[in-house]
Amino acid sequence: MSPEETRARFAAARVARLATADAAGHPHLVPIAFAVDGDTIYSAVDAKPKRTRALRRLANVRANPAVSLLVDHWDEADWSRLWWARADGHGRVLDPDDPEARRAVDLLRERYPRQQAQGEVLAIAIERWSGWSPTP
Amino acid sequence: MSPEETRARFAAARVARLATADAAGHPHLVPIAFAVDGDTIYSAVDAKPKRTRALRRLANVRANPAVSLLVDHWDEADWSRLWWARADGHGRVLDPDDPEARRAVDLLRERYPRQQAQGEVLAIAIERWSGWSPTP
Repeated sequence: MSPEETRARFAAARVARLATADAAGHPHLVPIAFAVDGDTIYSAVDAKPKRTRALRRLANVRANPAVSLLVDHWDEADWSRLWWARADGHGRVLDPDDPEARRAVDLLRERYPRQQAQGEVLAIAIERWSGWSPTP
Repeated sequence: MSPEETRARFAAARVARLATADAAGHPHLVPIAFAVDGDTIYSAVDAKPKRTRALRRLANVRANPAVSLLVDHWDEADWSRLWWARADGHGRVLDPDDPEARRAVDLLRERYPRQQAQGEVLAIAIERWSGWSPTP
């Protein structure tokens, strides 16, 4: 898959998985709602109950900005239709009052009218879009 | 979700996402077929075309054994039905001739009759099962 095709498939998906790692290199994974704007991926924290407010994904990005995100399509009946799209880049944690964060929350609300974004916003500058499908 | 409930939901899923990180802490993500045996998760490489034989997930585990795996359930219509299950642990790369690897390939073949496992097997000893659902 070309980087353009990978980005288009990624951007159209509804859920992605975000991998961060702490300073010692321990990876951490969560599913996220997201919005793609050019080569930036935005994600916010929903107001639904979380175990802790100090989210590990944000602490990790502050300590180690390298992140990887994945969208995949699983087809139990036909493995030839499997594909995945990956985005690798570097994250920044935006203050909720940052104009870029407010714009990101607007983008997210367009895609997910039910989401009640709150707090900090994660902005990820994508340096590499890479994908796989059995029929290139 | 209790660790037992988390493990049961994880084990029943058909696809998981595997996060590894290299020695410098750069995370890497791929979707995987897998089998759970107690507190060990096994995954093999399918014979379908790969960009390279020297898979990055295996190189990463050799350099940094900390891994995280995620299964999630997305429900566009009803966000109250979302859940995810995460498994954190340490990976080992098994030689294809290792009896544990051969047993793992048998387990994988039972779950995925179409998969043609080949080469090394990834065995991950899970130290923590953690999950989230809106209705605990």
